Amino acid sequence: MSEAAALHATRATIGDSEFDRDTTVTPREPGVYDIDLSAGWSVIGAVNGGYLLAVLGRALADALPHTDPFTISAHYLTASQPGPAVVRTDVVRTGRTLSTGQASLYQYDGEGREVERLRVLASYGDLDGLPDDIRTAARPPAIPPMDQCLGPEDGPGPLAGSVSSTITGRLALKLDPATLGWALGSPSGRGEMRSWLGLADGRDADPFSLLLAVDALPPTAFEIGLSGWVPTVELTVHVRCRPAPGPLRVSITTRNLAGGFLEEDAEVWDSADRLVAQSRQLARVRLG
Amino acid sequence: MSEAAALHATRATIGDSEFDRDTTVTPREPGVYDIDLSAGWSVIGAVNGGYLLAVLGRALADALPHTDPFTISAHYLTASQPGPAVVRTDVVRTGRTLSTGQASLYQYDGEGREVERLRVLASYGDLDGLPDDIRTAARPPAIPPMDQCLGPEDGPGPLAGSVSSTITGRLALKLDPATLGWALGSPSGRGEMRSWLGLADGRDADPFSLLLAVDALPPTAFEIGLSGWVPTVELTVHVRCRPAPGPLRVSITTRNLAGGFLEEDAEVWDSADRLVAQSRQLARVRLG
Repeated sequence: MSEAAALHATRATIGDSEFDRDTTVTPREPGVYDIDLSAGWSVIGAVNGGYLLAVLGRALADALPHTDPFTISAHYLTASQPGPAVVRTDVVRTGRTLSTGQASLYQYDGEGREVERLRVLASYGDLDGLPDDIRTAARPPAIPPMDQCLGPEDGPGPLAGSVSSTITGRLALKLDPATLGWALGSPSGRGEMRSWLGLADGRDADPFSLLLAVDALPPTAFEIGLSGWVPTVELTVHVRCRPAPGPLRVSITTRNLAGGFLEEDAEVWDSADRLVAQSRQLARVRLG
Repeated sequence: MSEAAALHATRATIGDSEFDRDTTVTPREPGVYDIDLSAGWSVIGAVNGGYLLAVLGRALADALPHTDPFTISAHYLTASQPGPAVVRTDVVRTGRTLSTGQASLYQYDGEGREVERLRVLASYGDLDGLPDDIRTAARPPAIPPMDQCLGPEDGPGPLAGSVSSTITGRLALKLDPATLGWALGSPSGRGEMRSWLGLADGRDADPFSLLLAVDALPPTAFEIGLSGWVPTVELTVHVRCRPAPGPLRVSITTRNLAGGFLEEDAEVWDSADRLVAQSRQLARVRLG
């Protein structure tokens, strides 16, 4: 076997990967699912919001007659911790081409009472059933070739802000040097973050991993010159196309930091130069 | 009294206007509100989605301890008709600076059963309590002065697409001629729509009328060269600042029309050149 073939043979696949295992929900009763939130997708002790969205996205794919999230809106209530959780879903409406559902994730307080972590509303459909017609004015982000981009493994030590972050080990991140000023102590002041993105075990992207992808980069606030946690209040993702195999390119832009809040607009492009997901989140920021 | 003063005296005010009367919800029991959906905010027989969002926004402002919608996400299920409706709210979480709630609007079928029209999740806060710090890269849209823009009253007859639309009579719309090609039979092909926007009775904007403003312009699909209805699947609005008195400027952009869906990104700017609201919706489009 050639070295390339050997490498290929060890790549994880959709359905059999870390990400799939860590987002698997187990039916407890109709519409109710158990999950053990993995510590592997945490940032500074808190479970990543995109990973949580993927967990709820998979529960809704089971509860609804359609399998693909077309648009999913999450409001984050309290910080999730690694460990046991329960997802409760509600089918709001089922239609021929779209179905709408709601889901909440709960964990347990010291007395075993359920505490709600986030709630989502989502409309699902069938991505493979969409017509091929595309009239887009969107262009892929200008990111240098991957070998000119930098990941955590390329630095002399952990990137600033990535301390105690375990999610970076699960991701294949290669950041555009033009948006890495923050890691060198000289942020550009522009609210931009761009990166190549894959999963570290080689699993290709699918609609659920796109829900993770939109929230997987360092916060744009770092490049604006702010440090500290930027907790998400609300995150809405539109999945527009099933991604082709290969690495994704993710571009995140913040235009309006005002009154202690900012928006993060994300675009995710696949290897076939298609805009496969768009998202926007509202996040709080500590002004320094 | 001068003519200007007389004009000023007849202007409607926040709390006493068509928009306020038509979005007033009447408590039936705790968390449940009755509303008679006005026919005055309809487009081709269907009630405008922004008006519906404002109705649910007002119900949640009553149900939650905070008064201002910071981020509100709506999933549209079935088309609303003018007439009686009921809003059911649910307080999800109350916090010191933010509260989260859910609301659904129902109407009645032939047998008097409730049919859900749309469901929203929203997080509310206090806009007046936010710090003044602004570090924005956003710039107001380039719209010509209002006297160089065109409204329905400036044409020889009703604008194409505005037939049977009663909402235009409630709005003071002055569209940028650069985005009016569709009305003259020669759409630009660009997914852009820009306009000055006010309420026809002179009422100034507030956070609730911003929920209307993001969905009040003709669809960008017209300027792309498509006609027909573009029903909203999901609409999320971020209200970032309480608007100053005076007309708003609204800019809507569609970059990605693909697979029978498109996104509409809206920005709303106030007379003080502040970005007061941002929104994105996913809508279906019939490809011609």
